[in-house]
Amino acid sequence: MNKEILDNLLKDIGENRFNHTLRVVKESKKLAKIHNIDMDKAITSALLHDCAKFEDKNKLLNMAYDFDIMRNNIMKLNNHLIHAPLGAILAEYKYNVLDKDILNAIKYHTTGRRNMSQLEKLTYIADYIEPARKFNGIEKVRQLAYLDLDKSTLLAMDESLIFLINNDRIISKDTFEAREQLIINIYFKEEMNE
Amino acid sequence: MNKEILDNLLKDIGENRFNHTLRVVKESKKLAKIHNIDMDKAITSALLHDCAKFEDKNKLLNMAYDFDIMRNNIMKLNNHLIHAPLGAILAEYKYNVLDKDILNAIKYHTTGRRNMSQLEKLTYIADYIEPARKFNGIEKVRQLAYLDLDKSTLLAMDESLIFLINNDRIISKDTFEAREQLIINIYFKEEMNE
Repeated sequence: MNKEILDNLLKDIGENRFNHTLRVVKESKKLAKIHNIDMDKAITSALLHDCAKFEDKNKLLNMAYDFDIMRNNIMKLNNHLIHAPLGAILAEYKYNVLDKDILNAIKYHTTGRRNMSQLEKLTYIADYIEPARKFNGIEKVRQLAYLDLDKSTLLAMDESLIFLINNDRIISKDTFEAREQLIINIYFKEEMNE
Repeated sequence: MNKEILDNLLKDIGENRFNHTLRVVKESKKLAKIHNIDMDKAITSALLHDCAKFEDKNKLLNMAYDFDIMRNNIMKLNNHLIHAPLGAILAEYKYNVLDKDILNAIKYHTTGRRNMSQLEKLTYIADYIEPARKFNGIEKVRQLAYLDLDKSTLLAMDESLIFLINNDRIISKDTFEAREQLIINIYFKEEMNE
């Protein structure tokens, strides 16, 4: 991995978040191998997925306004979601990533979206299951991650949704649409084609 | 209440569902009084809210196709949702209800929707809390129903969503949008107006 990128990341996101990133890279490599997904893309997506999660929260908010990410209610009410779309912008303009699939894996790593690519699901799941995570029900998500990316992603989203609901937090429309499509893919594909 | 309507209902939806309907009428009267909502509209909405929940499921499905209700994925995958929009159609054409607010209270009594009227929330909640219901967390929804229709509706939706998520069922877009708006109304109204 490029030393300049690593130095920049460490400076922007701080040591804890940087160490999390390295764990996501490791998890992504494992998943890329199992699911036969492009290894270089998996590593780059993981490395940059949190590149906009600045330790300095004012910097995050100012950049979000500058790059016109604060358009909808959910970004205003849930600042936690800003870093993913902002990260995709930084990946492109600061880190010179050109590959659309990598940029989308970064952009949607927190919410997911309808029609996620395999790389997008991989980054979403690697971030969710890296070894230091301790979410409710995470062991089942981990087990599924090595068998079936769709089922693992659905379960991770369901756990996230229950957390959001129990805390009166707004749910992203992207997550809502991602979940609907995953359920159809997993359980009803044949029926929907009738 | 009109005897012809009661006879028709009993014939279409059967004794159990008919008795549920009478309990929802009673609950709706109570809520209408507390929240100062039009009593006649509350009674008519409650009386007809399940008028399309035919005991004969083939009849329900055939009518849903006839009236073009089966357009989207969610209706195909969750037949339970059909009776509400179909009920609004029957209320208009079989029971000659002209009032749009009543028709919407029937149409959205299962899912809710963005910008629900007070009558829509009342019918949604009366159906949810009538005395024979035994959902998870229902006592809190009942207590809130007599104090604050928005908060009660949000909590009922949250409980419904958790049930759907735990059972791998698709969530209606209307419920998703209703919940988002209720949260903004309850918690963030001032912030959103800034």
